[in-house]
Amino acid sequence: MNKGELTRQRIIATAAPLFNQRGFDGCSMQDVMEAAHLEKGGIYRHFSSKEELAAECFQFSLAKAMRSRSGEVDHIPNAVEQLRYLVHRFVSASSPVPGGCPLMNTAIDADDGNAHLRRLALQGLRDWRDRLIQVVDGGIARGEIRDGTDSVRIANTMVALLEGSLMISRMEGSTRALDDAKASFEAVLGEIAADRGELNH
Amino acid sequence: MNKGELTRQRIIATAAPLFNQRGFDGCSMQDVMEAAHLEKGGIYRHFSSKEELAAECFQFSLAKAMRSRSGEVDHIPNAVEQLRYLVHRFVSASSPVPGGCPLMNTAIDADDGNAHLRRLALQGLRDWRDRLIQVVDGGIARGEIRDGTDSVRIANTMVALLEGSLMISRMEGSTRALDDAKASFEAVLGEIAADRGELNH
Repeated sequence: MNKGELTRQRIIATAAPLFNQRGFDGCSMQDVMEAAHLEKGGIYRHFSSKEELAAECFQFSLAKAMRSRSGEVDHIPNAVEQLRYLVHRFVSASSPVPGGCPLMNTAIDADDGNAHLRRLALQGLRDWRDRLIQVVDGGIARGEIRDGTDSVRIANTMVALLEGSLMISRMEGSTRALDDAKASFEAVLGEIAADRGELNH
Repeated sequence: MNKGELTRQRIIATAAPLFNQRGFDGCSMQDVMEAAHLEKGGIYRHFSSKEELAAECFQFSLAKAMRSRSGEVDHIPNAVEQLRYLVHRFVSASSPVPGGCPLMNTAIDADDGNAHLRRLALQGLRDWRDRLIQVVDGGIARGEIRDGTDSVRIANTMVALLEGSLMISRMEGSTRALDDAKASFEAVLGEIAADRGELNH
């Protein structure tokens, strides 16, 4: 990495929590400039616009959140256990970036606003859901999850429950809603887990 | 209502969707002024600050959403059916105010920002959840819901699932995630519904 690229990365790492906490309209280039100890020209040498910087920051924050939430899921052999583990990871490390979930923040911030950020958030949602769908479909193929389980429904349910309970938990300053989501997801897992009888076929 | 009060109500009704769609920072008094066809002084005669107007708008939007989501729930005798009905209402009329759920929007918008709006959002969450807790506790008392059911958990789960799936549905421009939430909530209802045997005791 040359010096220019290092500065660019440093600006992104500094600005990402600001955008995640304050939203696109609530965070000015002036705020970023001050936090990064740069002149205004210094930022515009690296980013053509606030929109470009905000987009890079969203990708940076989302990647960080997804890494933290995935943990070591690939080392777990059973699909039902993988889903349980992913819920546990989310609940115990819900906001690896200051300001809460970058996906939810950007989705709500951009849903009636910035079209580029909205597209990136939608892509982030789809990538996350696709990984969950793969876990469920893998489980069906290996007989760990009941045949005929709607993997899209399970993935949507998991994302909705986790994001919604994170919103409540952040409002209340308590992990109670996240813990409740984890407990309630057991009902969904109980419904889709193949029973021993089926596994022994 | 005198003329002043009528004008005040008209400004709130006009500004509420703007704040709900754009957030506190994304909506200026200039925007409200233009939408309401008023001079700037005309707004400040009725509201001392943008914060006061935004707070009134949030209360207005939330009350509208809660009325629409409650529907005729009080006419339904069984608690399990009441919960099912409330999920159905939310799914079929998810955004009675343009811009999505005022509670989620304000929660996300204000979680690192405006303290007064944050308190109002938290109160709105608690009121909604208290009503759900009452439904569950009533169901336990009448033997429709299993003894020992954690009513706070059920209420948190319902709010999280509905708000999270509304977020996904709005991102995708599709009701799929809301329909999935409704289907998945059946697993939770199945877990808490008292079985006929218990009812016949």
